[in-house]
Amino acid sequence: MMFQVRMDVNMPTDMPADAANEIRVREKAYSQELQRSGKWRHIWRITGEYANYSIFDAKDNAELHELLIGLPLFPYMRISVTPLCRHPSSIRDDDT
Amino acid sequence: MMFQVRMDVNMPTDMPADAANEIRVREKAYSQELQRSGKWRHIWRITGEYANYSIFDAKDNAELHELLIGLPLFPYMRISVTPLCRHPSSIRDDDT
Amino acid sequence: MMFQVRMDVNMPTDMPADAANEIRVREKAYSQELQRSGKWRHIWRITGEYANYSIFDAKDNAELHELLIGLPLFPYMRISVTPLCRHPSSIRDDDT
Amino acid sequence: MMFQVRMDVNMPTDMPADAANEIRVREKAYSQELQRSGKWRHIWRITGEYANYSIFDAKDNAELHELLIGLPLFPYMRISVTPLCRHPSSIRDDDT
Amino acid sequence: MMFQVRMDVNMPTDMPADAANEIRVREKAYSQELQRSGKWRHIWRITGEYANYSIFDAKDNAELHELLIGLPLFPYMRISVTPLCRHPSSIRDDDT
Amino acid sequence: MMFQVRMDVNMPTDMPADAANEIRVREKAYSQELQRSGKWRHIWRITGEYANYSIFDAKDNAELHELLIGLPLFPYMRISVTPLCRHPSSIRDDDT
Amino acid sequence: MMFQVRMDVNMPTDMPADAANEIRVREKAYSQELQRSGKWRHIWRITGEYANYSIFDAKDNAELHELLIGLPLFPYMRISVTPLCRHPSSIRDDDT
Amino acid sequence: MMFQVRMDVNMPTDMPADAANEIRVREKAYSQELQRSGKWRHIWRITGEYANYSIFDAKDNAELHELLIGLPLFPYMRISVTPLCRHPSSIRDDDT
Amino acid sequence: MMFQVRMDVNMPTDMPADAANEIRVREKAYSQELQRSGKWRHIWRITGEYANYSIFDAKDNAELHELLIGLPLFPYMRISVTPLCRHPSSIRDDDT
Amino acid sequence: MMFQVRMDVNMPTDMPADAANEIRVREKAYSQELQRSGKWRHIWRITGEYANYSIFDAKDNAELHELLIGLPLFPYMRISVTPLCRHPSSIRDDDT
Repeated sequence: MMFQVRMDVNMPTDMPADAANEIRVREKAYSQELQRSGKWRHIWRITGEYANYSIFDAKDNAELHELLIGLPLFPYMRISVTPLCRHPSSIRDDDT
Repeated sequence: MMFQVRMDVNMPTDMPADAANEIRVREKAYSQELQRSGKWRHIWRITGEYANYSIFDAKDNAELHELLIGLPLFPYMRISVTPLCRHPSSIRDDDT
Repeated sequence: MMFQVRMDVNMPTDMPADAANEIRVREKAYSQELQRSGKWRHIWRITGEYANYSIFDAKDNAELHELLIGLPLFPYMRISVTPLCRHPSSIRDDDT
Repeated sequence: MMFQVRMDVNMPTDMPADAANEIRVREKAYSQELQRSGKWRHIWRITGEYANYSIFDAKDNAELHELLIGLPLFPYMRISVTPLCRHPSSIRDDDT
Repeated sequence: MMFQVRMDVNMPTDMPADAANEIRVREKAYSQELQRSGKWRHIWRITGEYANYSIFDAKDNAELHELLIGLPLFPYMRISVTPLCRHPSSIRDDDT
Repeated sequence: MMFQVRMDVNMPTDMPADAANEIRVREKAYSQELQRSGKWRHIWRITGEYANYSIFDAKDNAELHELLIGLPLFPYMRISVTPLCRHPSSIRDDDT
Repeated sequence: MMFQVRMDVNMPTDMPADAANEIRVREKAYSQELQRSGKWRHIWRITGEYANYSIFDAKDNAELHELLIGLPLFPYMRISVTPLCRHPSSIRDDDT
Repeated sequence: MMFQVRMDVNMPTDMPADAANEIRVREKAYSQELQRSGKWRHIWRITGEYANYSIFDAKDNAELHELLIGLPLFPYMRISVTPLCRHPSSIRDDDT
Repeated sequence: MMFQVRMDVNMPTDMPADAANEIRVREKAYSQELQRSGKWRHIWRITGEYANYSIFDAKDNAELHELLIGLPLFPYMRISVTPLCRHPSSIRDDDT
Repeated sequence: MMFQVRMDVNMPTDMPADAANEIRVREKAYSQELQRSGKWRHIWRITGEYANYSIFDAKDNAELHELLIGLPLFPYMRISVTPLCRHPSSIRDDDT
């Protein structure tokens, strides 16, 4: 089941560089693990912003919520979720 | 080059059913042709709304504009475009 | 799987009373059938507005979308959907 | 008398973990006590956000206000209340 | 129980003057009857706008809803309701 | 001359409790003195929020401004003022 | 007593030119009469829009309301009023 | 050439009173000097807010910008500028 | 003197094609004449929308207003103007 | 390929003047280098605000993103990007 997720990151400008980098390294590893598992289907950077649009494939709302609150950057993000479904004009088998 | 496009359709409620259907048939054919060409990479229905989130892969802004104004439903749509780029955490080769 | 749905109805003020009533009668029957089936779990009127907040229990986004576009009042509604999940503090077994 | 309540929690990211946890423990106990009493009828997590939609059954606006300002997380919340009433299409006896 | 209600009137500019006046006459009579009954406690014109802020005293949300949908101008109004309660600093006995 | 005033209070969560209480005590005394004088005609708590809707009766805009900037909580408030006037349907002599 | 008033005009694009002109002629005469009386102190066009920012000097809210609903263009306008008062830094005697 | 300027002041609540007063004294002197020069034509307090609406007469956009960034309170203000021009109904010679 | 202007076009969907085309032809001629004169410095289509961002070089606000209300599409446009000035980092001689 | 970029700068008011100036010096050098390269085609100050509207000419979204996140002021900016394309009425050869 597909969801669009927008994530806007807002880290305090006075956070020490080491602490910030450590979170970003964990975030990247977490994201790539979920991408490999097929749960996090797409991630694109929004041009000019510290933000992304992502497509998740979760078995239900609860699973999606668990995936999102596990993000190392979750405390510094504003997140909004849009539930998607197959479009009647779609020709792709895997966008359901 | 990737773009997210949101399309909200708003047809007049007093449009004759035949005229509305004829536009929708042409819209579907146009969309599927662009999907087959690889320009319209994804299309998902937004749950509960007569609207979609789509991903286009166009060679530049001008090409994207031509694709969008060619939509049979264009006069009845509100469209907004967000330019995307590859996310540094992405592991998919074809999301560039 | 639970969803909150807000529906705002906006019928044209010049629609003939008979036509409007006929739609409302069908809307009520449709709503009550879905309530009896357990898909439409709750519906409350928003005080002072021709609008409601509802809770749906659908097996996925696609089923919810089918239920909503089947509403006789759909062409006259603005709908927004919020995906819900079980709250860790909830004590109700059936709010999952 | 039913009310929909949306609560968005925003705790300072630099609050010590112990202090934050202590508040969350008290919040959970407070919420569950009100749920058992029947005043807090439903609570759902909004997917992907540190926020909830709840349904309260209070005897009047004043009682609802007392319940809400007693929340241990109240100083860190943005709250909005929507007064509800029975929908003429509702078939549930207890959604009044 | 007190509620603040904001009503914004938007009649079609092409409605015949007679029809518009007839509705306004009924609206005024309806409003004054409710004021005399004590249900509609205050009504003030918002300066420069075809709109008012009112204070209602209803026994519950359901009664308030019935009063509002009975307004002859209801089909031409946008209404928003804010539930109020006694302020701890208030010295008026009748603002509860 | 009547004005509706909405006040939203936002005190820093790290203000010492003593300092916060001292301001609230002065605020309450100030408010009640103005209520006794007839300048502050009504004050209601907005359910679930640290905010109020009030009605002031001031002889002109300048007097209202002086009353509002004198509020002990003024530095921590967002205030918006709506000028009111007698509604042609009003039956109350003292809502002018 | 001073008020800022913003007026946005929105005439139907299918109104006959004669009818529209007749209203505009009456509007101009009405405005100039109020300017000569000193009630309508300033009027400026907002660059690029069919809208104006004006300053009124009315003896109270009620008088301002009467002046505004008397505008021939009132049924086609969206109006918002901001009550002003003398600024402590002002050096002009007549901006009170 | 006329411009409407709205200025909203937001000084940190923990700024020492001496530092805040020193800035306000310089702000007032700066404002009055510009008023005497004719560049700052009007300034009014927005009732109930730490904000003003002003009218500037500058020879071009660049001059207006220089005047505004020279404000001692500039770092603590949110400013928005609306370019004005003579209204065809205006009867004042000096509102051009 | 430079201004950014955003124009959003909204022609009625039921306007006869001939009438619409005739206006567009006049609009294009008018725009190109102003571009050749140097008053309309730049015009870009906003990708996916019937809208443009333009840069005008007018000698004052009044001239800009005259240019804009002369647009054949003016009655069908929503326009917003932002006054610009030379940026201290700019290296272009003609962006003043 | 053209993009409009709006940048709003918001530096903390308590940042030491030396640190702030050092960033601004680097920002100016970075901007001018990109202007000389032809990537940053135009930059204008928004009158009265610490903000600019710029036009970039980048070969794709990815290049634009790299240019923007390289801005020394990036951590203190809110940025929004609008993809542009040639307007059919444009007469300038270099606005493509």
